[in-house]
Amino acid sequence: MKILVIHGPNLNLLGKREPHIYGVLTLEEINQLIIKKAAEHNIQVRIVQYSSEGDIIDEIHEAKNWAKGIVINAGAYSHYSYAIRDAISAVELPTVEVHISNTFAREEFRHKSVISPVVNGVIVGLGAYGYLYAIDYLAKIAKA
Amino acid sequence: MKILVIHGPNLNLLGKREPHIYGVLTLEEINQLIIKKAAEHNIQVRIVQYSSEGDIIDEIHEAKNWAKGIVINAGAYSHYSYAIRDAISAVELPTVEVHISNTFAREEFRHKSVISPVVNGVIVGLGAYGYLYAIDYLAKIAKA
Amino acid sequence: MKILVIHGPNLNLLGKREPHIYGVLTLEEINQLIIKKAAEHNIQVRIVQYSSEGDIIDEIHEAKNWAKGIVINAGAYSHYSYAIRDAISAVELPTVEVHISNTFAREEFRHKSVISPVVNGVIVGLGAYGYLYAIDYLAKIAKA
Amino acid sequence: MKILVIHGPNLNLLGKREPHIYGVLTLEEINQLIIKKAAEHNIQVRIVQYSSEGDIIDEIHEAKNWAKGIVINAGAYSHYSYAIRDAISAVELPTVEVHISNTFAREEFRHKSVISPVVNGVIVGLGAYGYLYAIDYLAKIAKA
Amino acid sequence: MKILVIHGPNLNLLGKREPHIYGVLTLEEINQLIIKKAAEHNIQVRIVQYSSEGDIIDEIHEAKNWAKGIVINAGAYSHYSYAIRDAISAVELPTVEVHISNTFAREEFRHKSVISPVVNGVIVGLGAYGYLYAIDYLAKIAKA
Amino acid sequence: MKILVIHGPNLNLLGKREPHIYGVLTLEEINQLIIKKAAEHNIQVRIVQYSSEGDIIDEIHEAKNWAKGIVINAGAYSHYSYAIRDAISAVELPTVEVHISNTFAREEFRHKSVISPVVNGVIVGLGAYGYLYAIDYLAKIAKA
Amino acid sequence: MKILVIHGPNLNLLGKREPHIYGVLTLEEINQLIIKKAAEHNIQVRIVQYSSEGDIIDEIHEAKNWAKGIVINAGAYSHYSYAIRDAISAVELPTVEVHISNTFAREEFRHKSVISPVVNGVIVGLGAYGYLYAIDYLAKIAKA
Amino acid sequence: MKILVIHGPNLNLLGKREPHIYGVLTLEEINQLIIKKAAEHNIQVRIVQYSSEGDIIDEIHEAKNWAKGIVINAGAYSHYSYAIRDAISAVELPTVEVHISNTFAREEFRHKSVISPVVNGVIVGLGAYGYLYAIDYLAKIAKA
Amino acid sequence: MKILVIHGPNLNLLGKREPHIYGVLTLEEINQLIIKKAAEHNIQVRIVQYSSEGDIIDEIHEAKNWAKGIVINAGAYSHYSYAIRDAISAVELPTVEVHISNTFAREEFRHKSVISPVVNGVIVGLGAYGYLYAIDYLAKIAKA
Amino acid sequence: MKILVIHGPNLNLLGKREPHIYGVLTLEEINQLIIKKAAEHNIQVRIVQYSSEGDIIDEIHEAKNWAKGIVINAGAYSHYSYAIRDAISAVELPTVEVHISNTFAREEFRHKSVISPVVNGVIVGLGAYGYLYAIDYLAKIAKA
Amino acid sequence: MKILVIHGPNLNLLGKREPHIYGVLTLEEINQLIIKKAAEHNIQVRIVQYSSEGDIIDEIHEAKNWAKGIVINAGAYSHYSYAIRDAISAVELPTVEVHISNTFAREEFRHKSVISPVVNGVIVGLGAYGYLYAIDYLAKIAKA
Amino acid sequence: MKILVIHGPNLNLLGKREPHIYGVLTLEEINQLIIKKAAEHNIQVRIVQYSSEGDIIDEIHEAKNWAKGIVINAGAYSHYSYAIRDAISAVELPTVEVHISNTFAREEFRHKSVISPVVNGVIVGLGAYGYLYAIDYLAKIAKA
Repeated sequence: MKILVIHGPNLNLLGKREPHIYGVLTLEEINQLIIKKAAEHNIQVRIVQYSSEGDIIDEIHEAKNWAKGIVINAGAYSHYSYAIRDAISAVELPTVEVHISNTFAREEFRHKSVISPVVNGVIVGLGAYGYLYAIDYLAKIAKA
Repeated sequence: MKILVIHGPNLNLLGKREPHIYGVLTLEEINQLIIKKAAEHNIQVRIVQYSSEGDIIDEIHEAKNWAKGIVINAGAYSHYSYAIRDAISAVELPTVEVHISNTFAREEFRHKSVISPVVNGVIVGLGAYGYLYAIDYLAKIAKA
Repeated sequence: MKILVIHGPNLNLLGKREPHIYGVLTLEEINQLIIKKAAEHNIQVRIVQYSSEGDIIDEIHEAKNWAKGIVINAGAYSHYSYAIRDAISAVELPTVEVHISNTFAREEFRHKSVISPVVNGVIVGLGAYGYLYAIDYLAKIAKA
Repeated sequence: MKILVIHGPNLNLLGKREPHIYGVLTLEEINQLIIKKAAEHNIQVRIVQYSSEGDIIDEIHEAKNWAKGIVINAGAYSHYSYAIRDAISAVELPTVEVHISNTFAREEFRHKSVISPVVNGVIVGLGAYGYLYAIDYLAKIAKA
Repeated sequence: MKILVIHGPNLNLLGKREPHIYGVLTLEEINQLIIKKAAEHNIQVRIVQYSSEGDIIDEIHEAKNWAKGIVINAGAYSHYSYAIRDAISAVELPTVEVHISNTFAREEFRHKSVISPVVNGVIVGLGAYGYLYAIDYLAKIAKA
Repeated sequence: MKILVIHGPNLNLLGKREPHIYGVLTLEEINQLIIKKAAEHNIQVRIVQYSSEGDIIDEIHEAKNWAKGIVINAGAYSHYSYAIRDAISAVELPTVEVHISNTFAREEFRHKSVISPVVNGVIVGLGAYGYLYAIDYLAKIAKA
Repeated sequence: MKILVIHGPNLNLLGKREPHIYGVLTLEEINQLIIKKAAEHNIQVRIVQYSSEGDIIDEIHEAKNWAKGIVINAGAYSHYSYAIRDAISAVELPTVEVHISNTFAREEFRHKSVISPVVNGVIVGLGAYGYLYAIDYLAKIAKA
Repeated sequence: MKILVIHGPNLNLLGKREPHIYGVLTLEEINQLIIKKAAEHNIQVRIVQYSSEGDIIDEIHEAKNWAKGIVINAGAYSHYSYAIRDAISAVELPTVEVHISNTFAREEFRHKSVISPVVNGVIVGLGAYGYLYAIDYLAKIAKA
Repeated sequence: MKILVIHGPNLNLLGKREPHIYGVLTLEEINQLIIKKAAEHNIQVRIVQYSSEGDIIDEIHEAKNWAKGIVINAGAYSHYSYAIRDAISAVELPTVEVHISNTFAREEFRHKSVISPVVNGVIVGLGAYGYLYAIDYLAKIAKA
Repeated sequence: MKILVIHGPNLNLLGKREPHIYGVLTLEEINQLIIKKAAEHNIQVRIVQYSSEGDIIDEIHEAKNWAKGIVINAGAYSHYSYAIRDAISAVELPTVEVHISNTFAREEFRHKSVISPVVNGVIVGLGAYGYLYAIDYLAKIAKA
Repeated sequence: MKILVIHGPNLNLLGKREPHIYGVLTLEEINQLIIKKAAEHNIQVRIVQYSSEGDIIDEIHEAKNWAKGIVINAGAYSHYSYAIRDAISAVELPTVEVHISNTFAREEFRHKSVISPVVNGVIVGLGAYGYLYAIDYLAKIAKA
Repeated sequence: MKILVIHGPNLNLLGKREPHIYGVLTLEEINQLIIKKAAEHNIQVRIVQYSSEGDIIDEIHEAKNWAKGIVINAGAYSHYSYAIRDAISAVELPTVEVHISNTFAREEFRHKSVISPVVNGVIVGLGAYGYLYAIDYLAKIAKA
């Protein structure tokens, strides 16, 4: 079984940027945790990080051909990219949205994700664990 | 280590009520899963279900004296009970908010939880798994 | 056939409180009219009045086991209790919402009932007659 | 005693149009039920149906001269015709507003009636019964 | 010189309806005052009163062929009839909007007239005098 | 095959009114173009123009009995007539909404049509061509 | 009989400032017209112009002691000075609000006057004539 | 003379919870100050603290029978409990609303109290002194 | 110890203006009560009343040099004067905002004070007593 | 004559994605229809599809140098890309906006296109025909 | 060449008030920098600071007679003084608006300046440099 | 010292596009002015122009490694790109936002920049000078 993990804009700065908000783990370290968790479920993951909305959309389209699920942290695009929303909606793959920080405890504009209505579920504020639970969930429902 | 799990109003009807939204597991079955997952972490759980806002507040206050964390699905109270929010905020215990269904894909009024800004994190739409990840998270950060 | 009639908060003060708004009949007098009207249809009624949101929810849950319909005047809870709304929605019994005064001719906050979208119908501003028509309606559709 | 019953635009299509929303009774059949119910109270009814806002206003003005009450289902005009509202307000006759379907469970724009603040009461979602209860109510308060 | 004076819906009830708001003069009496004032300026007036939006629109279109100005009190249509607004805008005649009562001191919905942005000026709350000043103004600017 | 073409209020002034917005063609000239285009598809058209909301509703109701589709430019009624919307919705005929000018480039109130959600499609800002494409479209889908 | 006429901020620039909006008459010329019109009614006028909100308030308070009515064009203060509103409301003198240009045809913020709800009436867009009609009205109601 | 003092949800945690917001005095210490201040006026106080909305409503109803005034700090219920508002409004006792912290300097949702419109007055942000001034005020107006 | 007491616009009319709202005491009588209460605490008060926003700002600036606290009833300026708010915020003196009537029970625009977020506390609706409690509070915290 | 046709994000999935909304034609099939229709008018078309906002903007800039018109379906970018809007506005080419489905009958966020105010016209809900009418329109106005 | 520099309310406290927001320079020190910069361009400056809205308006009117440009920091008046806006608009002098702190990073009410739409440009958050760039800009465009 | 200057979408059309809004200078000419001004401060500038949001984000990330400050005119992205905002916020470099035209005097959607709250300052409407002052400011604070 294969899963796509998408990190959106600015997440490449994790661990270096505002650690009081986003924690001290770098993106590389988080990716290692994801790979390890996936391996426990015998899942292969493709992990990508993009600054561009268009690249994220293309990646989601491609996933239709090979993946059994998507984990996405679209960063700030979550709050306005109806184009990414449409891409997720179109490929009809089980999808979990993840945010590292508790977006509901931050600026008003972060309280709404336009992606949330078209995913299976959302995990917010649990740091890097969010990705791991998302992997676990996709593994579980694939078996069910 | 001990954790409090609170189910809010109408969750006693789980498995009997609108299964296309809330799934087929009864509250009792979910509670068994929670207890089992907690046991894996050597955690004792106190699980309660209340229809009354006041009872939930009292339970949270009590937890201050014995619990190391709270998992709460406040049901419809999530959308307007600033009193429960204040209770959570006051006891200063690590807290995870859980919703079984994807509230962001349902009626407008379910898109906002007044509790979310004062908890550590939120898990939405992952069914009964949400509770299990919440337990796991509280166990992990207690060790950290 | 049995029907549950629920009076919400402050309705115990009927006839004593602001009679220019709520009329001169006491709750007891209205209940006698309800019982009489129900008897005409060979219906037994259980009539309760609660100040507490939680008590109303529990009563609605219980009704699932014995009642064929619900008449509810949730008083001020009508305007914000999504928890009562969820309870009504969950038990899937024919339900009529009643308000004694014309709530649409009063303060802005009384113009919206969060319960109305999940009931069969709503009767507003017809005084105690509202309850009687609600009983009649439930009797009629039970036969249909 | 005489009462005016007004059906607004599109209600002439009742029974033919979207029966899952408006029921299977035709306007003619509903009118027969109204006449029968009125007769029980020894009331004569004049029943009209108009597509035009102006015709409804003129009819209400005329009623001032002969009717003891009005039952009105203004259809979609309910949601924006301040002119009909003013007409009802001006003639100062006891008036009951009726809607066949539960408008609060439908599109957002149907949740607000600009007529409701100037009538005695409103009956929503009880199908054709709404008209009959309205007749009954007007009969009762005329005697009181 | 000829001027069209349009009274909208419910204004035929003037003097009989809510005199604390609209004053004690009947429409007939106001029309006599208008005719007298117009005569002082050697102006002929055509005065009409309609309940129907369509009739008002047709009348405005006709005025293009014979009138040098319009005085309009569109009653409640003022608050939503973009169709009447378009008619006024299209005929490009000097137009004064009149309201007998101070609409800004009444219900919120009366505070906005969709017609006001396309007329020369608006006179509100000066009772029947408003019509007379409107006639005077149209006479003055015709000479200028 | 027969099609109904409805022109709403003020469209009778086309070509005479604000030509920088609505173009120089008169309604009569546009109607000739429509008739010619319809003839190409062997379609008979009934073309009407009304100032009154009620007349438009009646015409739509009638169309149920003879027409295979409707082309409607409801003029300013588009922005508030839920009654016309209900009429279109009730007769369940293929319908295309047309606006001659680009309403989205004009006043705020013209940006929303309450009719759009219940028609097949909308053509805005293409001048008289809009009607011709609407006829063409109805012809095409009738054959499909 | 004596009347107070208040011109608010920037009105001293009349005739020099944006004449396409405010006309070509200077404030001095308008004041002469006012004095002449007042003289026709045997009225003495005190005419003031202030840039300061506080000065306008003091002037209104003083008027309580000598004036029989107020004509006020509060300029831009009309849109936010609740302090001037309270002053007018407190002295309980017949008051007419005047605006030279049609404020409803200009920027959104000019569409609302917070003063309008507490005056007798409002005259908008009739140029300098507005002041003259206001004087006339106050003269008329003083006699009535 | 007797007065009822009501503390709402979470106020039992005073002095222990967020002292930078609510101060260091415990509820017990505040109650002693209240009792002492009341004694100065020869007033007996009944002081209660409830987490449940229903209990607060019942207590207010009871007060009708014995108290001459109410001091209420409804905590977070202040922001949404129209049911408590209705209870206060119904018993028609002089009532003062108290908040220990300056709610207007905190989160947006705390800026509005739905109770404020039905009480005599409101004291916000003066710490425990607020209760004492409330007692003093009720004593003074009882004598007046 | 010295305290500044500021009365805003229109408060000079107290006792003469709308006594059903503002009570029967004149400003002079209230000032005597304030002076007396201040004397009890051995406090000297400077009491001013201004119609002008600028004067109030200057007075607040001056207070920085001599006062230990401010009591301010800014009248209608409370609802929009961000300039007064900034002045209070800048001088960093303990400040209590007072309103004689219950502003929350009056027009919508009086429900919000832009000053409230930068003062220590607010007293609303307790008549002249509000000033006295404000003096008492400033005396108490100065000692603390 | 040459025309640019731009398909925005996710339109490459046409025919495969949610066919109940977008129809069964693939993008390739639609493009063939466009080419054929263009050929009838002796027009050459360049047809592109991009996921990236930046690519669409660059393409529009380029068109300035060679195209006589643009047909654009910007997909979800229509609802928020002010950058694409500015690009269209800047190149000043005749432009028609096309949407395959009736966006006004779908989610709220699809009801507004930020592009519509700067194009010549908009065709919504007519399926693939929309593109063909757009080509036809651009051909017609180029000749005019 | 002469330029007017206006400092609004509370700016006299610069350097003494909240230095973390407004910096450590006093108004006097900033004025010296302005004079020096102006001298470089051979410009004479008149620098004023007012607490009163009316004084600012009068100063702007006067500038019409002698100044070639205005630099204005209207302080909190920026957010609501439509009267100052009208004054600027009326005198038609090149004007630059300056704010020392980044108002967009502060309270919501500071995000909007009602003055900005009528000035040439706005400089926000660059501290005292803002004034100097404003002087430079006015010098440059005067030469152009 | 090195500084990054970013021009967003459509700015490559400067001097060619809508010169009445954006002026007659081409981007190349403006860049020459920037380079010259930077040279005066002994600053090297890297100047880029991108149509793509992703490219702008990548460029900002890179700047972290070499630049001492950023000047950004994000064009239309300013109004919705929370992703660019997050990038600026993350790299924590002194940043000045520039807009050539006065965005506050244009369409409503241009009045808000989501980037403004995270930059040091904003210069709007001063044409190409805005860039030069931004360079100057960054030079000055680097020395401070």
